[in-house]
Amino acid sequence: MKPTSTRRELFQSAALVGGAAMATQTLSFLPGGIALAAGPEAKELPKIERFPRNYVIKPLPFNPDNLKGLSSKLLQSHHENNYGGAVKNLMKVEAEIAQIGPDAPAYVLTGLKTNEHGFRNSMILHEQYFDNLGGSGKIQGKVEKLISDAWGSVARFESEFKTAGLGVGGGTGWVLLSWDLRTAQPIMSVTGHNNQSAALSVPLLLMDVYEHAYAIDFGAKLKDYIESFFANINWEMVNKRLELAQEVSKSIEIGSSTQAT
Amino acid sequence: MKPTSTRRELFQSAALVGGAAMATQTLSFLPGGIALAAGPEAKELPKIERFPRNYVIKPLPFNPDNLKGLSSKLLQSHHENNYGGAVKNLMKVEAEIAQIGPDAPAYVLTGLKTNEHGFRNSMILHEQYFDNLGGSGKIQGKVEKLISDAWGSVARFESEFKTAGLGVGGGTGWVLLSWDLRTAQPIMSVTGHNNQSAALSVPLLLMDVYEHAYAIDFGAKLKDYIESFFANINWEMVNKRLELAQEVSKSIEIGSSTQAT
Amino acid sequence: MKPTSTRRELFQSAALVGGAAMATQTLSFLPGGIALAAGPEAKELPKIERFPRNYVIKPLPFNPDNLKGLSSKLLQSHHENNYGGAVKNLMKVEAEIAQIGPDAPAYVLTGLKTNEHGFRNSMILHEQYFDNLGGSGKIQGKVEKLISDAWGSVARFESEFKTAGLGVGGGTGWVLLSWDLRTAQPIMSVTGHNNQSAALSVPLLLMDVYEHAYAIDFGAKLKDYIESFFANINWEMVNKRLELAQEVSKSIEIGSSTQAT
Amino acid sequence: MKPTSTRRELFQSAALVGGAAMATQTLSFLPGGIALAAGPEAKELPKIERFPRNYVIKPLPFNPDNLKGLSSKLLQSHHENNYGGAVKNLMKVEAEIAQIGPDAPAYVLTGLKTNEHGFRNSMILHEQYFDNLGGSGKIQGKVEKLISDAWGSVARFESEFKTAGLGVGGGTGWVLLSWDLRTAQPIMSVTGHNNQSAALSVPLLLMDVYEHAYAIDFGAKLKDYIESFFANINWEMVNKRLELAQEVSKSIEIGSSTQAT
Repeated sequence: MKPTSTRRELFQSAALVGGAAMATQTLSFLPGGIALAAGPEAKELPKIERFPRNYVIKPLPFNPDNLKGLSSKLLQSHHENNYGGAVKNLMKVEAEIAQIGPDAPAYVLTGLKTNEHGFRNSMILHEQYFDNLGGSGKIQGKVEKLISDAWGSVARFESEFKTAGLGVGGGTGWVLLSWDLRTAQPIMSVTGHNNQSAALSVPLLLMDVYEHAYAIDFGAKLKDYIESFFANINWEMVNKRLELAQEVSKSIEIGSSTQAT
Repeated sequence: MKPTSTRRELFQSAALVGGAAMATQTLSFLPGGIALAAGPEAKELPKIERFPRNYVIKPLPFNPDNLKGLSSKLLQSHHENNYGGAVKNLMKVEAEIAQIGPDAPAYVLTGLKTNEHGFRNSMILHEQYFDNLGGSGKIQGKVEKLISDAWGSVARFESEFKTAGLGVGGGTGWVLLSWDLRTAQPIMSVTGHNNQSAALSVPLLLMDVYEHAYAIDFGAKLKDYIESFFANINWEMVNKRLELAQEVSKSIEIGSSTQAT
Repeated sequence: MKPTSTRRELFQSAALVGGAAMATQTLSFLPGGIALAAGPEAKELPKIERFPRNYVIKPLPFNPDNLKGLSSKLLQSHHENNYGGAVKNLMKVEAEIAQIGPDAPAYVLTGLKTNEHGFRNSMILHEQYFDNLGGSGKIQGKVEKLISDAWGSVARFESEFKTAGLGVGGGTGWVLLSWDLRTAQPIMSVTGHNNQSAALSVPLLLMDVYEHAYAIDFGAKLKDYIESFFANINWEMVNKRLELAQEVSKSIEIGSSTQAT
Repeated sequence: MKPTSTRRELFQSAALVGGAAMATQTLSFLPGGIALAAGPEAKELPKIERFPRNYVIKPLPFNPDNLKGLSSKLLQSHHENNYGGAVKNLMKVEAEIAQIGPDAPAYVLTGLKTNEHGFRNSMILHEQYFDNLGGSGKIQGKVEKLISDAWGSVARFESEFKTAGLGVGGGTGWVLLSWDLRTAQPIMSVTGHNNQSAALSVPLLLMDVYEHAYAIDFGAKLKDYIESFFANINWEMVNKRLELAQEVSKSIEIGSSTQAT
């Protein structure tokens, strides 16, 4: 896989189904026939579009029959209803905001914009989540050292990541490993909702702990879901994201936020 | 100002007070003697640090006596208590998490991680917020066209941005103009808390609508604060952020998420 | 059923498993052998207890095999994990708060108290929820007229209640019909979390729309769950709650918050 | 003061400005000329009203010039903008919901209902908050023993209540002492928003820790506000609320949720 593919895949999404003005090519190694923008042409940014925009639901990047301990029924429901629903609702709410009159009460606009933000984040987080599933679950590569350096050991990291997810039990939220662009360091975050994320960061590994991510298969046994999630992590994808995130960090010449004391 | 400064300033922060291993230089045009990492050395990413990290509070990037309609008292309280408080609390909570035993109930760890996430985001959002203040308030440059293309006109954008903030009245939240890396398009978000932000995006313009951002000067007159905020926007900084964000977008060869239908 | 039973049942809960100092009697018509405090003795309020208190998990007030469209597996998981889990966590967190030292950072205490509040509300809301299930689903009695007067028709009320629940899709929350003690009027509320409820009100009908309330049976088909929920409403219990709530209103001689204009 | 007044005052509110059909009398000992419903007539519950209802803003129950350490400017802004704003917005949103068509997307109705719930709770909590201010700050009567029994000492209670509020710093929330109807025991809760409250409870003492409750006078010095709040608590009102809450508990013959183990 060429380095440029790495970059494309990091944010691979409906976004990559390029507009008419862009030369595109379908890469056969990606499921669902995702079309990626081709090299040189892609250097031009797309034309700025007005709202509402037309988002396209991206298919699952793996065969849902093949995951360990996560049923096809669960994965397809999660993909179709929660991810797909967010994409559709995002378009609806963008259309409403575009048409809202100047005399609407402020809280009505704020309410719609709040929904818009939640739906958009849900769309993005879900795309990234599905993209880091479908793998062997065997940690490897650069991210292994990164984690080990920051948390002392992979075991300590895994324990913290899993326990943090477990504590969400019976509700909504995400556990995220991200690359913090501000400090050029990895961070782990727990959020309570789709509308949250770590500002100025690139997500590397995302675990959905909303009940819709597991209840169909596991009922309330969140712990079993978390183990199954880990068994299916696509660490190759996590490594690609890390590589690109670090390149971005280098290009913006960010220093360290930490100091010897 | 050299192009490399542009990049550095985008995420300028305590982060830029580089670690001992980095060559640094103090740039006199930045208030408070912020030390930036020097050119070539900065190409090396900083060593991965373990938790707790040592974050340094960044001074206000402008003279607080000089802003129009926002008092020095308000700005200094905001900076010291809300931003500074977040930085200090982030370090406290990182230290607690690093020491937590393996037998703590899951909700205790999740509670601490939730706090950690909120404090970190608050730190970042506040740094970015102060950095886009201290300007003339006159929109200019690339961002003007960007906004006009996406929202139809600058007036429409301003009206939506301001009204969205107004609807938060008497509570907490942010209004954000961001560059969405997923679609290479601008988006405007309303959030309800520091712990939120637009995933996979680079913030361009941030308006704090927490009551601590205005009550000292304006009481409950949020509308007057919003006008004063706009009168002090540093659009030059917004343009620099936009430039870098678009460079990042180009380098990752992202296509458009929008399609002709 | 005697009028005093009505009152007891309104708030029937683990609470009703009285302390040693109270005369109690087991009412055979209640599942699980719930012991109710007997008449005169109950006039004495229980001794004020210190924290942590000892909460007892109340069994399901119906046979989970007998509900229409809601499986025993779903109901038992909901009861055991989400309700039971809340009760157990409430006791854990009360114990921690009781032992916390005076030098703990404020946000640590606030975090624990926030958890305590969420667990306690979850316990109460779930008890009330299960108590208004297990019925015929046929609206009847006083509440029918109440609803019809306030919402224009039962159909309009049902449509608003169901649609409001549907809009929560894929997340967390409750839809509540409550008796507002402040105005002596019925209100319908949508909440986003266990930690919310209508202040100064008595809940009459509670519908859980957390994903744990339906995903095991319905996946993401929230609409089907809502229909099943309505088919099992115990309107007799809703009427008993209404009767007691109105008695309380009368005893506090509350006027109307509405005026002819 | 007659016992019936006690009950009326507990929930005194715009609600008490009775409708045309009710006999009312103006009690001169209440500031602002609050009219209370007279005895026997009040035994009839008000007619059930349809939405939107007509809520009336209740004046401050004390002279805002006379509080210790809380300025008239702060108190009037809090009353007019935050409380008054909530009442006005509640009526707006009730009107919108009453007119919403059956084909609106579910999330639009849910969004409006979510706002409705938040505005209503804000109205109620603020009325109760102002009503427990304007006093001497000297704890007395029944509540003193209640607190001492449950928390070990008044000092321990005060410390926990104050610290819990302090931990909210720079955001939104409430600290509440309530009478839990479910267990007939006092509880202390920390909430993060107006939309929260303790289910099935009667609030006894409410401390607003939203920034609008203090920033005008104290900036970010939340600790100083909390001390001033305590110096102005109307413990007489807290005692009246407690008395009525316990009467309600007795009338519903609730047992203890706690058991000897």
